[in-house]
Order: sequence, then C-alpha cells, then structure tokens
Amino acid sequence: MLVTEQNSIHFTQSDERINELLRSLQEVTDLEALQALADWDQQTGMPDGASGVRSNQAATLQGLIHERWTSPRLGELLNKLEEVVQRASFTDADRGLVRQAHRIYNRSTKLPRKLVEEMERARVISHDTWVHARANNDFASYASCLEQTVRFQREVADLYGYQENRYDALLDIYEPGLTTSTVEQFFAPIRDVSVSLLQQIQASGKKINTSFLQGSFSEVQQKLLAEKLLTRIGYDFSRGKIARSPHPFTTSIGAPQDVRLTVRYSDILPMSMMAALHEGGHALYEQGSAPTLLRTPVAGGASMGMHESQSRLWENAIGRSEAFWRGQYGLVQEAFPQSFQQVSVTDFARALNHVEPSLIRVEADEVTYNLHIIIRFEIEKALVNGEITVASLPRLWSEKYHAYLGIEPDSDTNGILQDVHWTFGFGYFASYTLGNLYGAQIYHSLRKSFANFDQRLAAGETAFILEWLRERLYTFGAIYQPDELMQHIIGEAANPQHLIQYLTKKFSQLYEL
Amino acid sequence: MLVTEQNSIHFTQSDERINELLRSLQEVTDLEALQALADWDQQTGMPDGASGVRSNQAATLQGLIHERWTSPRLGELLNKLEEVVQRASFTDADRGLVRQAHRIYNRSTKLPRKLVEEMERARVISHDTWVHARANNDFASYASCLEQTVRFQREVADLYGYQENRYDALLDIYEPGLTTSTVEQFFAPIRDVSVSLLQQIQASGKKINTSFLQGSFSEVQQKLLAEKLLTRIGYDFSRGKIARSPHPFTTSIGAPQDVRLTVRYSDILPMSMMAALHEGGHALYEQGSAPTLLRTPVAGGASMGMHESQSRLWENAIGRSEAFWRGQYGLVQEAFPQSFQQVSVTDFARALNHVEPSLIRVEADEVTYNLHIIIRFEIEKALVNGEITVASLPRLWSEKYHAYLGIEPDSDTNGILQDVHWTFGFGYFASYTLGNLYGAQIYHSLRKSFANFDQRLAAGETAFILEWLRERLYTFGAIYQPDELMQHIIGEAANPQHLIQYLTKKFSQLYEL
Repeated sequence: MLVTEQNSIHFTQSDERINELLRSLQEVTDLEALQALADWDQQTGMPDGASGVRSNQAATLQGLIHERWTSPRLGELLNKLEEVVQRASFTDADRGLVRQAHRIYNRSTKLPRKLVEEMERARVISHDTWVHARANNDFASYASCLEQTVRFQREVADLYGYQENRYDALLDIYEPGLTTSTVEQFFAPIRDVSVSLLQQIQASGKKINTSFLQGSFSEVQQKLLAEKLLTRIGYDFSRGKIARSPHPFTTSIGAPQDVRLTVRYSDILPMSMMAALHEGGHALYEQGSAPTLLRTPVAGGASMGMHESQSRLWENAIGRSEAFWRGQYGLVQEAFPQSFQQVSVTDFARALNHVEPSLIRVEADEVTYNLHIIIRFEIEKALVNGEITVASLPRLWSEKYHAYLGIEPDSDTNGILQDVHWTFGFGYFASYTLGNLYGAQIYHSLRKSFANFDQRLAAGETAFILEWLRERLYTFGAIYQPDELMQHIIGEAANPQHLIQYLTKKFSQLYEL
Repeated sequence: MLVTEQNSIHFTQSDERINELLRSLQEVTDLEALQALADWDQQTGMPDGASGVRSNQAATLQGLIHERWTSPRLGELLNKLEEVVQRASFTDADRGLVRQAHRIYNRSTKLPRKLVEEMERARVISHDTWVHARANNDFASYASCLEQTVRFQREVADLYGYQENRYDALLDIYEPGLTTSTVEQFFAPIRDVSVSLLQQIQASGKKINTSFLQGSFSEVQQKLLAEKLLTRIGYDFSRGKIARSPHPFTTSIGAPQDVRLTVRYSDILPMSMMAALHEGGHALYEQGSAPTLLRTPVAGGASMGMHESQSRLWENAIGRSEAFWRGQYGLVQEAFPQSFQQVSVTDFARALNHVEPSLIRVEADEVTYNLHIIIRFEIEKALVNGEITVASLPRLWSEKYHAYLGIEPDSDTNGILQDVHWTFGFGYFASYTLGNLYGAQIYHSLRKSFANFDQRLAAGETAFILEWLRERLYTFGAIYQPDELMQHIIGEAANPQHLIQYLTKKFSQLYEL
C-alpha cells in the first residue's frame, strides 16, 4: 500500500516550511480556479462580444499566476524542503506537494511573464475564432490563430528544453517524462492491431444495426438522461454541474468541491450519452481527491494520461459493456420509449460498439479511436518541428484520414476544425491513447478483484467500482506519479499488451472473427 | 454640453502619468471583473457544495484587489495628477478617472486587508446561507450571518468615518455625499404622498382586474418573452446574456462589453417580465458606456442612485405605461395566447399599475414601493447605530409592514428574508428611492424633448429614448458625478417634487381620484 497509517493523506502543517508552502500554494491555486471559472464561462455561454475584454482579463490573471509560480521565495522554500522532505517525519502528501510544486516552479521560471500573458490573450481569441470557424466551416479564418499557436508552442518547447525531439517538451506538460520515441513505441503495436481488426471486421461483411441511435431526441430529455447516468455512476451533483459546450470537457473550479462537465447534443444519442460517461470518468477522478488536498496543486489527477485512463475506462470498458447497460438501459427506454421500447439491451449495447471508420474522434468506436489519435500525433509532431505548414493542414488531414481510415472529411468542420485542443496548444492528444493503455491495464486488474463483476454491473451496481478506484487512485490526487500509481494498482508499468488483448478479445467476439 | 470637441470621451494617453494610471487601473478592473464573474456564477448555479472553497477563492481575489487599490505608488500618482488634471490639456475623462480612482483609493486605504478578506469570505457564506434560509423559511439559520454583517458594517463605517450619523458612511458608498439627513428630507414628502395616495385609492373602492396576470406560464416562454422585450428596448445580447437567480440582478464582467442580468420565474407573469425591464434599464446604462472607458473604474454607472433611476425609469415610467404596451403587447399575446387573447392592452397596462399593499418589494406597485424602501432604511439605520438586535428583526419587520402598509408577512421568506442585499451590507436601499426621484426628473425632461413621445412609443419605437439617454447619460459612465449629470440633463439638482407630481398625476387619473 502507498498509504500506511503514519503516512495517510495529510500535510505536516506543524512544520513551518510546509505551512508557508501551503499558504503560498493556496493563493495561486485559488487564482487558477478563477482561471478555470473564466474558461468554463467562455466555453458555456459567454457573450460573443466579450472575448476582447475577456482576453485581457485572462492575461492579467495569468500574469499574476505566473508571478506567484516564479517567486524567488517559493524557489528557496522548495529547495529547503527538497533537502528534508524525504525524512520519515514528512508524509507522502508533503513529498508529492513539493515534487508537484517544484515541477511547476521549474517550468514557470523558464517562461517570461510577457510571453505567458500574450499566450493567454491569444488563447481566448483563438478559442472564440475557432468556435466561429467551426460553425461556419471556415478554416481560413482560423488559420492565422493556429499559426500563432504553432509559433508560441515552438517557443515554449525551446524554452522548456528537450533532449531528442522538440515535441518531447510539450508531451512532458501533460504526461511527465513521456517522450516522442516512447509514444511511437506504444503506438506501433496499437496501430497494427487497430488496422488489422478494422480490416478483419470490414472483410467479415457483418453489419451491426445502429439505426435506432439516430432520431429526434429532445435536448431536455437527453440532458435528464445524462444527469441520471452520471448520478448512477456516482458523480456528485452537489459538487458539480452539467452544461453544454461546442466541445465536451471537464474542469475543476476547486477540486474536489467544484467539478463541472459539459456535453453537446445532436440527433445521434451517443453523442451526449457517451460524452457524459467520458467526462463523468474525469469528474469522478477529480471529485475523488482526498478533501485535505483542496486548494493545493495536488488535488485532481496525476497526469493527463491517468485522467484519460479514467474517462476512457468509464466510457468504454464499462460504459459500452452489455453488463453495464443491463443495469442502466431502463433509463434510456424511459427517456425515449418510442425509440427503444422495441430494442433489446443486447442490440443496444452492440450498436454502441459498432465499428466503422468515421470522421469525428470523440464519436469513434474503440477500434478506430486510436487511429484518430495517431493522425493528430503525427501532425502535431510535424508542426512543432517545422516540417509542415498550417496552410497544408486540410489537405494533409484528408490524406491521413484516407490512409488510416479509408475516408475523407466532407468539411473542415468535420475534419481539421473538430477539436478544441489546438486553440491552446500541442502535446495533449497522446494522453488519450496512453489513457486507453493505462485504462485497459487498470480495468484488467479491477475485473480480477471481483469474481462476479459482470453480474453486479448487470444488477445496476457501480459503487463497488468507484470505491475500488477511489481507494487505489482517485484519493491520492497528484501526490504520486503515474508510474508509482500503476505499480501500486496493478504491479506493472505502462504496457500496451493489455489494450491489445482487450480490443482483440472484445471485437473478435462481437464480430465473430 | 458636457463634452465638447476637444473634450470628448478619451484619456490623454500621451501623458505618462495618465498612461501609468490607466495600466494600473486596467489590472485592478480586470480583477474586479473576475470577482463579478465569480459572483455571477455563485448566484446563477454554482454547485451547493462549492461555497466553502469559493469563499476562500473570493477572499484571495479580494485581497489582491485591495492590495492594488492601496498601493503607495497609486497614491503618489493620484496626488501628482490631482495637481495638474484641472488644466485644459487634460480631458473630462482624465478628471473623472482621477476623481473616481482617488475616491476608491481613499476608501480602500482606510480598511485593513485582513478585514477586507474576512468580509469577502463571510459574504460568500452569507449568500449561500441566505439562499437556503429563504428557501426553507428559516430566519434563525441565517441570523448569525446577519449579525456578522452588522458587526462588519459598523466596523467599516467607523473606519470610513462620518460627521453626523454612522449610517452616513455606508450611504456614501453607493451615492457619493448622500447623508442620512438628506435621505430623510427626500423621504418625508415621498412617504406622505405615498400614504395619502394609498389611502385615497383604498377609500375609492375601485378595483383593477389583475386576474389574468396569474397563471401557469411556462418558464421557457417567459424567458423568450423577457429576451424579446429586452431586445426591443435595445439590450444587446451579443454583449450580454440572461440567466435565472433567486434575486434578480445585473452585473458587468467588463462594461460595456459584457453586461449580464437575471430574472426569476413564477406563476405571476410580471415577476419575470418587469424584472427584465428593471434589470434591462441597469444593463442599458452599463452597455451604453463609451467603449473608450472599457477596463477602467469609470465604465458603468455614476452612482447607484443614478443606476436605479434608469432601472426604475425603464421598468415603471416607460414599462408600465399604456403607450409602451401599445407597441409591445403583441409579444405577450404571442407568448401566451390563451391568457391574453381576450385581454385588451388598456386592461393589461392598467393591471400592471394596480395598487395594493403587498409583501414583496420587487413586485410592489409604484405607490407603495417607496414605503418598502423606507421600512428598510429605518431598520438599517437602527441596526448600524446599534439600536436594535438582529433577533428582533422578524417582529420589527411585521410591525413596520403593519404600520406603513397595513399588512404583515405570512413567512420570513416573504418578509425579512426576501432581499439579497444584507448578505453583503447596508446602505444600498436608499438608492432605489433616490433612483425613483432622479428617474422622475429625467423622465420629465425626456418627455419634454419629444412632442409625440407617447405616439412613438405606441408605434413600437424605443430607440429614440435609448439614444437620448445614451447621449446625455450612459455614454459618460462615471466620468461625472450625479449632481453634474442632473444639472447637465435637466438643469436642476435632485428634487422629490417631480416624483410626487408624477405619482399624483398618474394614479389620480388611473383611479379617478
């Protein structure tokens, strides 16, 4: 166990240095929470005409945050604490806090405040421009924002520094220690199994009926259904809320006390329903941090890869299993009786796992999903290393979709403009596939812990899963690093074999390959 | 005219001191906008469980704002500018900026940062406690918060200082220079005419039919109607949005680019409809500031009294006139055909002006409204001067409602708990009646400017009114003080006679007294 009795999740507040560190981190964490709030507001309904003033407000706030993260006094304090914090009189929480704060301090001191403020100003404008470009299928209007992002991200990568590949500096933001070459090693066998499974499925000629997933589903009912599903998996609405945004996301305005998520609605039911389960996974992780971690930078997730492991686990391993829907399908039938009264739960769950090359990443099935990520990874890497231009992206996007998935986007809205991520930077997408990989490992271990896993799920139980994950993962926040957590939970390091086996087994059965 | 060609609304940015002042004020104005955003979020749907962490976040932000408003460098700069800013090379905007900033600087330096942070922390908790107390008709659960507010407000008043009455120090926050004795002078004839009109109306035995204003009006339709009415009076949704909150309010998250308002819904249609016009008046004022005032403390209104003059003018003088509804009633009939198809516009407008003693201030008619204010004014004054206890308030409230209006609340929810204001402080309520007073003066002048005022209003026009108010009032933000603005717009100082004449004429006609 990571946590023993004398080592439980609390900070040694009797130590004056820890105390000073906590006070200083509480202030900057509060400011970051306000930044998250401003971002939540922008994405969920800020007036269109406000983006100019908001970009200045965000830059002011970002400047103050940066000032705090680069304070010489903080640096001294962290150096002093590094000398002593390994001693037995300190807790794992102390050590995690110092490690995490030092990481952010080191990174922050590499960037000049002016650049940080400029990037923040540009980010708000870029998001606003992207929303309109996406709505109007107008890549050209967004291209100059994206070019600016490329310039900023290259500058940031150079300031952070890297050993082999400029892109490593950006990957490391989201997953500490992750390098381009590691990602490539992970991705190669995942790409192979994805391509192979897709070919076999297409060759099999088998079709799964998904027609009932499309219809005129009222938004009010979709929202209610999303809320009920979230409540069923244990999301706590007294510390959260759900809203609508162009791109679904989860954010914490003070984890674990205020953790919010968004979905979007369409005439394809899984778009909101599966987004709720995906974002719900993120939110369960954030709401699960030990209450003692509130107002510190170790509340929330250990890394973006660990975070996506939880969103993808709840969305896919659990949320696309027939066992889960045996317990929850009543909610769907209740919400839309006309559409689902005649559809069996088996057919419903099969439809949710239907494999078909598609244009939109967040709606992709589990077999093709990682190919969407690989396309983005390849493009980001080339952009950051200056090998391709922004102007070439729509063409390149089409070529890659053609090569990997055999399809091409009908519009930039459904192509290069679909994701929000490039409005703020590069390096994030790899975390999704890393999340799938971690998630498959954790899911394997989770199933082994319960003899009657599927039966309990089919009986509508989910609390036993949440409890298992909370105890082993969520409660620790970012006190431990991903590799420590993986060793703790499953006793091995990141390993793509579980994901490969999971995909192969699941889809061979489903398509009788 | 206040503004001549060489004196238009811009700052002398070529002057290094003005430039430095602007940079410093932009930063603190950005932080205040984020504070307004946090408050907007809290009042429009922050998760219940988040108030603990939010109170700390708000206190952190308030501390930073206070630090900036008390910076010695800002004090020096303002002193230097005071020496030169009256010179012809500076603009009225420069002078207004220096005056306003100096006022806030002087006030801020009187309060210790620790107190300011504590009050902000308490304010968030107090609001949360009030929401629940109000929902549960449980004054006792809120009493200790209110006691704390009394203690804080007494301390603040003593730190600000005053000549005659401790309450003066609080009145001055919302209306510069306003004193208790001035308010008492204004209120005496207004109280007399209100009581006298009410008695005459009750003695007349005349009843106005209002039955059609109550019904099961769908919230979705009420919201649409509110949006349409707001659009008709010129509220710009590209720089604003509407939400729902327990108590309607307007806030700017960066005036004039982001000005938002709330309403609430019930089975009494005017509750949302008239709140939309009231808050719409505030919002038109905030949206009307010259764009050059963005990110400065002179964007927005000149004082709370001036602000309420606009909310009350749009809500009452315009929004309860038959002429206005001749132009807009179609929207109501469209929204709720079953309820209003058979109701004439004359009967509809008469119903909106129906006079009857009632429990809820924001729903009160124009005759009794000021009596609601006078009750609060008397109670606040006594609380701040330590003459009464919080525990005695529910009883005192009943006694005063009985004395002034002949009715008593059926619950604390409809009595002492109805208003949000005491969750943050005292001294505001007088601004409403001052607003009615200013508003009647401005309305008198406005009507005189257009020969065919009622005809144009009845034809659905409102832009001519907004334009008149923008040119003379809104565009200046807080560059000029209320008395300067009143002189400019109507050529006289604050004077209750216009309000008295307005009320007497309007209700004598309506009730054929």
